[in-house]
Formats: sequence, structure tokens, C-alpha cells
Amino acid sequence: MKAAYYLGDKKFQIRDGAPLRPGPGEVRLNVAYSGICGTDFHIYLGHMDHRIKPPQVIGHEMSGTVVETGEGVTGVREGDKVVVRPLVPCGRCPACHAGHYNVCHNINVLGVDTPGVFQTSWTVPASTLHRLPEDIDLKLAALIEPAAVAAHDVRYGQVAKEDYVVVLGAGPIGMLVALEAKVKGARILVTEVNPFRLNLARELGLEAVNPEETNVAQQVMEQTGGAGADVVFEVTGTPRGAEVMTGLARSRGRIVVVGIFARPAPVTLSRVLWAEQHILGARLYEPEDFETAISLVASGALPVERLISDIRPLEQIQATFEEIEGGAQFVKVLFHNSD
Amino acid sequence: MKAAYYLGDKKFQIRDGAPLRPGPGEVRLNVAYSGICGTDFHIYLGHMDHRIKPPQVIGHEMSGTVVETGEGVTGVREGDKVVVRPLVPCGRCPACHAGHYNVCHNINVLGVDTPGVFQTSWTVPASTLHRLPEDIDLKLAALIEPAAVAAHDVRYGQVAKEDYVVVLGAGPIGMLVALEAKVKGARILVTEVNPFRLNLARELGLEAVNPEETNVAQQVMEQTGGAGADVVFEVTGTPRGAEVMTGLARSRGRIVVVGIFARPAPVTLSRVLWAEQHILGARLYEPEDFETAISLVASGALPVERLISDIRPLEQIQATFEEIEGGAQFVKVLFHNSD
Repeated sequence: MKAAYYLGDKKFQIRDGAPLRPGPGEVRLNVAYSGICGTDFHIYLGHMDHRIKPPQVIGHEMSGTVVETGEGVTGVREGDKVVVRPLVPCGRCPACHAGHYNVCHNINVLGVDTPGVFQTSWTVPASTLHRLPEDIDLKLAALIEPAAVAAHDVRYGQVAKEDYVVVLGAGPIGMLVALEAKVKGARILVTEVNPFRLNLARELGLEAVNPEETNVAQQVMEQTGGAGADVVFEVTGTPRGAEVMTGLARSRGRIVVVGIFARPAPVTLSRVLWAEQHILGARLYEPEDFETAISLVASGALPVERLISDIRPLEQIQATFEEIEGGAQFVKVLFHNSD
Repeated sequence: MKAAYYLGDKKFQIRDGAPLRPGPGEVRLNVAYSGICGTDFHIYLGHMDHRIKPPQVIGHEMSGTVVETGEGVTGVREGDKVVVRPLVPCGRCPACHAGHYNVCHNINVLGVDTPGVFQTSWTVPASTLHRLPEDIDLKLAALIEPAAVAAHDVRYGQVAKEDYVVVLGAGPIGMLVALEAKVKGARILVTEVNPFRLNLARELGLEAVNPEETNVAQQVMEQTGGAGADVVFEVTGTPRGAEVMTGLARSRGRIVVVGIFARPAPVTLSRVLWAEQHILGARLYEPEDFETAISLVASGALPVERLISDIRPLEQIQATFEEIEGGAQFVKVLFHNSD
């Protein structure tokens, strides 16, 4: 088998090795496709050096097939198509005790805290697996993990038919949030400064504007009869996003924080108070969000194929991260890890 | 009758006049007691000059008795003890259309946008009245309006038995929030820098600390086994309050914004996201919050008498506002408007 080891300092190295035999409760997968997440790029940039132990295989977006099961594993068998929900909660902290596993204080994210998916074979706890329909296209299934993030966000935002929804930022997650909210029957307005992403959003049938050219607040108020948006998704993680989000949401509207903020950001709390808005943090996903995402991808309800910018052999991992760093106009790049 | 007119520039003047006869749907009250709210003090300081039309009678906390009813008024009659929920929503804006009258875009607050209660006789829409039990002490009933604010906050915070609740700031509203949360069976920690209020909180049986002397986050974590508070009420309206609130609440905890922020404040949105916290704005009250407050005051469940720092004739209004400006150690000062 082959594995792409992250060595630190923006360097990967492909190494040959022996597949890791699954221990009790574990499963070994043939990885079909893997995707690059923003988190992987943050690791590459050195922002997460405190959690990574190079040389380490990273990556956590994928699709694959079960090839070997360890002792005591039930529920999956050889040949099953699967995706991994790459979380192992500690089971001991107050959040775990309350059953809130996705906000575990000591959560183990596969591909960050332990070896990840940028390899041909991946051995993981069976508890992380979700089975896929047999006829699913594994290429598209590699988008299920980010689609599950978006499903979690849309669920927390309680997006309903005919809601007016604003999505600030149309990277892969923002785009999926917008597309999944649209499936719910909501009216969507996407804001994005990057012309490539702005165009793609429009091609996917989303109303999308550049906030540097359009007065977004004015447009939202005009389109909602002065009410404001039912739900705002903040997916930029920028001070500007934090600043505008409260002005776009209606009284008693919901603001879902999805973007990752590097530092405290200015929020107009007087608006939160006067309009009784709700600001909700939405992190990762829970099992039901994976099931939602599987169903959305398998049914063709989401045009995920349009989000795949390129598919490359794993051997091109170094060049691909360098291209992203250089500003390449990608939404999602997949590696084809093995057949 | 007598009325205290606010003239602008920190000046009041007592004038004699004729009581205003109630029009259709209106009721004239004999005002027994009236209280000074933070809003009244903001008006005195000139912060709300854009909404006030001097000479104007201000004030909106009160208790009284019905003395005259206008055409078509049902539900109250002469002699009824009542309090006023001093809100007249517009009925036409998107929030009113949704039934969210307390966040009406054009809300008319009696005592701010129209004449208030610092007079012996007050004529108000019958729709604003809540009837009181016959045997209630009208002195204590003058605290029902702020107690209704707190009831709204506690309801939004979904405070439940055995919850761990932190209240940042122990002015009149913070103190009432803490006392009402305690009635719910929650464990309370109050933080307050003012020694007078800190002492009063302790005398009222609340655990209270000075955040300049105590590491509040450490104490909360120790007392909750590392979980954090179930609910945090931000009642300071200060940047420091906004900064610390997210660090005190548990994963999936609730943070209720009650304090009025003069400008955008820094919020650690990464903590909101990672811990999936909920930040909720809570404004004013709804009719059910008044009913809760009436029941809490009438039953003696709240020690509101201890919050009354002094009771004075309305003629002392000028001196009283000047004392507050000079830093007098009051919680709540009442005027005895008429017998």
C-alpha cells in the first residue's frame, strides 16, 4: 500500500508500507477517493502543529470499501461501500456524559489527532462507519463528509420551506449549506467575493452577489418586505462577516456560526437583544447528519459532481497543496487513492 | 393632579394639571408607586434625546388603581389594582405580523415614546393592563415590571432545577434574574464589582463574587466538574462581559444577552462554534412574563422589598436623579405618587 506522510514544513512524502491489520472493533478499508478539507490546508500551513505528529498521514474526507474486519465487528462486512464519520469522542467528559459527542472536550478527529485517509488503505474503528447504497458512485460519495457538515448546519438553522436564507461565503461548506437549504425549499442568497465561486454558485442556480459591489442588507430587506432573513449562515470566519450577520437576520431570526474565527470578532449585541436573535454555533456533525448527507448525495438531490474541480492520483499531493497555496481556483480536489 | 415633566438637560419640573380623561379603549389610573428604571436615567443623561419630546412626563415602572374607564373597556373596572405593561406594538410590521409584539420594529414604549408614569394620574390603553390580586402590597407591585423583564430572561434561558447559572452584573435586573433563577431551583453565581450590590446579593442568599478579585472561570469550572455553566446571563452590557461569557458557559450552554451594549463587542465566536453554544437576545417581556412576575411578587417568592432602597414623594424627583448621577448606592428608588 501507499501512504502520503505529512512531514511538517509544507512537505509530504509518499511511502510504501504494509496495511494495518484491524484490531478488535476495527475495520480496514480500501480507500477509493479522498478529499482535501480546509483543515488539511491549515495543517499544511502549520496552523495546527500543536495537534499533528509528523510524519503523519492526514486527511478525513473519503469514500471506500470494507476489505477486512477485526474481532467483534458487526454491521459491516467485506465489500460494503462506506464512508467514515472521522470522530472518536472520549466518552468521559461532561459533553459526552450529556450525549453531546460532537462537542466532546477531548475529541479525537481521525486524520488530525490520529492517522488519516491520504493512503490507499485505512484502518478505523467500526463505530465511525456509515454504510452506503450499493449503487452509489464512490467519487460523489467522497463529498458526503462535507455535505454532512452542511446538513448539521442546516438542521441547527431549522431551515424550512419558503424561509429566506443568507449564506455568507461560498467555499465548499458555504456552497453545500446553500444547496442543502435550497433542497429544503428555502430561498437562498449567497454572498461571495471570489469571482470563480460566485460564478459557480450562479451556475448551480443560486442567487449570488459580491458584497463589495452590492448592498446586501438593502437587498435582503427589499426581498423580505423589510423583515430580514429567517436564517443567516456565517461561513466566512471574518470580522466583516461577524459585523454584518446581525443586520441581515430578522427579529427572532437565527444566525448559525459555521466559519472558524481566529480571534474574537465584533458582534452587534444590541441588535441581538432588540431583535431577540439567536446565534448558534454548529460544529462537525452527528450520525443523523451523515445519514442525511448520504441520502442527499445518493438521490442526486445535490449537484456534488459540479463541486469536484479535479481528480488526481495521490502521488500528486505535494503539487496539489502547493497549487492551493498559490491561489488555484478549486472548490474540491479529490485524490483517487485506489481502485 | 401633579406631573413631573422632564424638560431636557437633566431638568424636571413639577406642574399641576387636569387628569386626562380616558378615550375609547383607555383607562385612567391613580398611580400609587413608580420606580426609576435605567432607561429613565439614560433619558436624564440625554442619551435618548432622539426619542423624547420635552417637556414630557417619563417613567414606566409602577403600580396603581383603576379610577375611570373609557368607552368599550372590558376586563377591568374602577378600584382594580393593576400594573401597566408599557408597550403598544404597531401591529403592522413583519415582527407584529409574526405575533412577536415585543420585538415590534416601531414599538411604542409608554414613558419613552408617549407620556409616562411620573405623575399622580396616568391614562393608558386598557390593553396594557394586568390585574393584580386584591391583597397585594402596591409598594411591592411597583417592582413587577422589572421582575417581568427578568422572568422573560429566565424563560428564554430555559433555566431548570439544578442548573448552574451565572449572572454577570447585579443591578436591579441582574439581581432579579438571579433571584428568579433561584426560585426555579438553579444554583446561582453572581458576579458584580460594586461592593454595595455584592453585599446585597449575598444578604439575599446568592453566591456572589467580585470578578476583579476572583477567577470566575476557574470557580465555575471547579463547581461544575469542568463542564461550565448551563446558562449565563450577560447583564453588564460591557465589552468585558461579552468577552468572558462564552468561556463560562458549557458545551451547548445558553448565553442570554440582557445588558444593553452601546457598540459592537468582541465575542469569541470560535468558542460559540466549538462548544455549540446558543446566544439569545432577550428584550422586554410578553404578557405571560407579567403574569409570572405578578405571581412571584404576590406569593412572596421574591424578596422584592429588599430591593427598594427608598420611597420618596414625587416632588423629590430632581434631587433623586441628581443623587443617582452622584453615585448613590441605590438598587431601586420608588416614588409614592398618590395614596
